[in-house]
Amino acid sequence: MSISNIRIAIDCMGGDVGLPVTVAAAYQFAQRYPDTRFLLAGDASAIQSQLAHMGCAQADWYQILPASEVVLMDDPVEVALRRKKDSSMRVAAQAVKDGLADACISAGNTGAWMAISRYVLKTLDGIDRPAIATSIPNQKGGATTMLDLGANVDCTAQHLLQFAIMGSALVSALYGRPRPTVGLLNIGEEVIKGNEVVKQTAELLRNSGLNFYGNVEGDDICKGTVDVIVCDGFVGNVVLKSMEGLARMVSAMMRAEFKRGPLSMFAGLLASPVLNRFRGKVDNRRYNGAALLGLRGIVIKSHGSADVYAFGCALQRAREAVHNRLLDGTTTAIHDLRRSLQEAEALQRATSSDISGRAA
Amino acid sequence: MSISNIRIAIDCMGGDVGLPVTVAAAYQFAQRYPDTRFLLAGDASAIQSQLAHMGCAQADWYQILPASEVVLMDDPVEVALRRKKDSSMRVAAQAVKDGLADACISAGNTGAWMAISRYVLKTLDGIDRPAIATSIPNQKGGATTMLDLGANVDCTAQHLLQFAIMGSALVSALYGRPRPTVGLLNIGEEVIKGNEVVKQTAELLRNSGLNFYGNVEGDDICKGTVDVIVCDGFVGNVVLKSMEGLARMVSAMMRAEFKRGPLSMFAGLLASPVLNRFRGKVDNRRYNGAALLGLRGIVIKSHGSADVYAFGCALQRAREAVHNRLLDGTTTAIHDLRRSLQEAEALQRATSSDISGRAA
Repeated sequence: MSISNIRIAIDCMGGDVGLPVTVAAAYQFAQRYPDTRFLLAGDASAIQSQLAHMGCAQADWYQILPASEVVLMDDPVEVALRRKKDSSMRVAAQAVKDGLADACISAGNTGAWMAISRYVLKTLDGIDRPAIATSIPNQKGGATTMLDLGANVDCTAQHLLQFAIMGSALVSALYGRPRPTVGLLNIGEEVIKGNEVVKQTAELLRNSGLNFYGNVEGDDICKGTVDVIVCDGFVGNVVLKSMEGLARMVSAMMRAEFKRGPLSMFAGLLASPVLNRFRGKVDNRRYNGAALLGLRGIVIKSHGSADVYAFGCALQRAREAVHNRLLDGTTTAIHDLRRSLQEAEALQRATSSDISGRAA
Repeated sequence: MSISNIRIAIDCMGGDVGLPVTVAAAYQFAQRYPDTRFLLAGDASAIQSQLAHMGCAQADWYQILPASEVVLMDDPVEVALRRKKDSSMRVAAQAVKDGLADACISAGNTGAWMAISRYVLKTLDGIDRPAIATSIPNQKGGATTMLDLGANVDCTAQHLLQFAIMGSALVSALYGRPRPTVGLLNIGEEVIKGNEVVKQTAELLRNSGLNFYGNVEGDDICKGTVDVIVCDGFVGNVVLKSMEGLARMVSAMMRAEFKRGPLSMFAGLLASPVLNRFRGKVDNRRYNGAALLGLRGIVIKSHGSADVYAFGCALQRAREAVHNRLLDGTTTAIHDLRRSLQEAEALQRATSSDISGRAA
């Protein structure tokens, strides 16, 4: 696949807003990256209207993939998977499966998107469970990539090891880091340090050939101590949402303070260039676009509430993953891990037969 | 015990700073609340020097409890518990055990403080494991109380139920709420909703007689959806530290932006009354003072990095817990729960014998 031809399938109906966000973001993206083509999955006439409304119906940057159904935000996974077989989600994932697209993206129901893309694309060899990864801005000016964020609530050490492999490959592809550092999320100084699964995972990671940093704590996410933080999906989901909640509270409180009376409003006006620069730095729309990893295809999940700018950032993520061959990277990493495990086993066998030979 | 006589034992040697914080905070507190007496545990001559240095050595507000050893921040729990039997921590906890004090507090090593206070005081009847609870400011202008924060990493549903009882009693005592709402921390819309333990806990909570709200998600902490949020200590610890890390990052970034060049500094100067008001609202020193719950005594843990103001807030927490009879509240709640469970069982037995009677 050449760089001059990146094809992204979009579930145009997904997200809180749907077409006005997804189609508009795709068009803007195509203007900026003329090498990108879009497959717009959804209600064909609604997509046509949206394109006409935006005055961008000339067909060189897109192709419509008609889909007669829409997965709703509150549809149970079973309904999305078994009853809506012609949903825009399903059609977008199928385009990757059929080799028509290099990546697919949806801003819809996360559970349904995970289930559908997993069902259609299947997992990579050596991966038992897909995981959800996202990047969180850190105080080093970069981003910390964290997984899993909710696809798997009960994980074994083997699962967490696989997440580490997938997360490393993602960071290499998205940020061009050759050997990203990997931290295992744990608790620190408190009474008991970590549960059994975490202890076993640390052992596996130490022997994995990955660039394992060791245990990290909750505050290392924003410190940017490591490139990749691995945890189970229950912890990851709760942590991410707690941080989102805190960020919303802080921003709402600050707005409210600058609106309390004319003097505060005047101060806010004068401080607005500084405050806007600050907001730009902590704007998490830039990091929109979680990756559903471990599948035989590049699958991106946008935040449901994404606006055109945020959805565009998620498209950027999809493009970079294709451009930097994320899947090849993941497959190679799995292969390398297997080989180093086999070598370690062979060495152990040789050493023990040597010992038993000498003992005999 | 009358309100006019609240006695708090302080591990004066604990925390990043030690005496200059703990003794100064106690003195200020005693000035504000002349009904409070302090038992100052630690190196007697060092405490005397600190008192003399502060010019407050008149002995009506305190008594010194000499202790020859100090638990260090990085002492393993075993060392703190088995080798340092005359530590200031141990002496402070023993004062509660011996009925000399109504509460004890330390800013030292959390693991050691939990182990020592548990060893000295033992757990309440009906409580298998103590838990650590703290309050986090929320956007309703109040605080959300969360537990466990790291004392227990592998919890059963029964443990989480006990945390809910202890957390409810704490909120009633600290904030005067008669029937606090309790939420169970879970993950939301993602693929699989909650692990097995969480599902079982929800079932127990529904039948507990507590004011159970249902599942809550990470962002409900700052939203202030419920008064008490229950989770296992691994999740709670990671969430709390992640939020602390984010808060530090945001505040550091904002400071940096207001220092970028003379114009920004001028804007910062003009906006400083607003920014200070904002900082006051999100100042988590006000909520310093985690409670170690489930013990036969009131035990408070201050942040190690607490300054005089923050340590004073933790003393306030200790005082309120004594004043509002936290232990009685917890014991009654456990008793009520047992009775309601017995009644439910009796009803079930009566119903089933009735059914079998009719069937015969």
